[in-house]
Amino acid sequence: MFSPLIKELIESLRCLPGVGPKSAQKMALYLLERDSQGADRLAEALRHALDKVGRCSQCRTLTEDTLCHICADEGRNNKRLCIVETPADVIAIESTKQFDGLYFVLMGHLSPIDGIGPDELGLDRLDALSDHQGVEEVIIATNSTVEGEATCHYIAQILKPKGIDVSRIAQGVPMGGELEYVDGNTLALALEGRKKL
Amino acid sequence: MFSPLIKELIESLRCLPGVGPKSAQKMALYLLERDSQGADRLAEALRHALDKVGRCSQCRTLTEDTLCHICADEGRNNKRLCIVETPADVIAIESTKQFDGLYFVLMGHLSPIDGIGPDELGLDRLDALSDHQGVEEVIIATNSTVEGEATCHYIAQILKPKGIDVSRIAQGVPMGGELEYVDGNTLALALEGRKKL
Ligand SMILES: [Zn+2]
Ligand SMILES: [Zn+2]
Repeated sequence: MFSPLIKELIESLRCLPGVGPKSAQKMALYLLERDSQGADRLAEALRHALDKVGRCSQCRTLTEDTLCHICADEGRNNKRLCIVETPADVIAIESTKQFDGLYFVLMGHLSPIDGIGPDELGLDRLDALSDHQGVEEVIIATNSTVEGEATCHYIAQILKPKGIDVSRIAQGVPMGGELEYVDGNTLALALEGRKKL
Repeated sequence: MFSPLIKELIESLRCLPGVGPKSAQKMALYLLERDSQGADRLAEALRHALDKVGRCSQCRTLTEDTLCHICADEGRNNKRLCIVETPADVIAIESTKQFDGLYFVLMGHLSPIDGIGPDELGLDRLDALSDHQGVEEVIIATNSTVEGEATCHYIAQILKPKGIDVSRIAQGVPMGGELEYVDGNTLALALEGRKKL
């Protein structure tokens, strides 16, 4: 019913998480009818982000800089490292204001079925990081899911022989819960109640 | 907490209707982490649509062609015209498969406060259309809102003196609507518009 370019815009909006055919149609018409300026801004922002945003060379989070603003902050305690699955998890933990160290972002979890092994998670780089930068404490804050637990276990096995103090955030996080949706207080408690592994 | 380009992507996603700060963040990270191909497609689709999509020269709906596919369809009855507020309304009526005529899309409704008068709605063009193309019947399907009603009334005053058969879509209880959940205004209209059996 729509012309090809509008159809393609509707289809391409469906790549956004949580956007079904009905809302994609609504969004496309809204942009074309009422907010071409917003649409233009969005097209530019996507283009710029795609062209420039990559990974922090140290913690692997998303950023257009070589070092993200957390890794670049000399005020942070670089003897402490928190390992998380995604950039959204960094944001979630930062929002508790309870952690003053650095992060390491796996960009996923071990998942042999999907071909995601230690290399894909940058664990070789984590190894180098712990060896050369004198990390003394590592808090593993992967999701409380089967895969997150397996990933935690694997990492602990690598780090503990190095004499690093390795802990897991407490099970204050509900089982099956994804970190980015947990409220700040629960997260703060989970950090505080971390257990030695 | 995010780098400037990611922040800008999150902000710009908020121009989409129904997208708040939390879902914008989720969408941005999803695109950058997991679907850069989808993001690229979306950026292109937005760019192409912005560059090429305009209004149908006859009915004013959104299209990249001079004439939309409905106006260009010689099988449609060009003596009948249905007037709607938006392109989405065209889609809604087309989906009923109960209308074989052409459309005229106002792209809004009369709203003096917002500076939207007859010219902004293309009513001059509607005038020309009815004079030169021999339109015999007009169905006004503007929204059942105060503005939609006012717009309907205004248009009817223009068209009726030309001897055109002008009607308004019926207002009443929606199909499957349970009376106790229908709002009072709708019920009042349904009562007023009752039909003899
Ligand atoms: Zn970093
Ligand atoms: Zn048309």
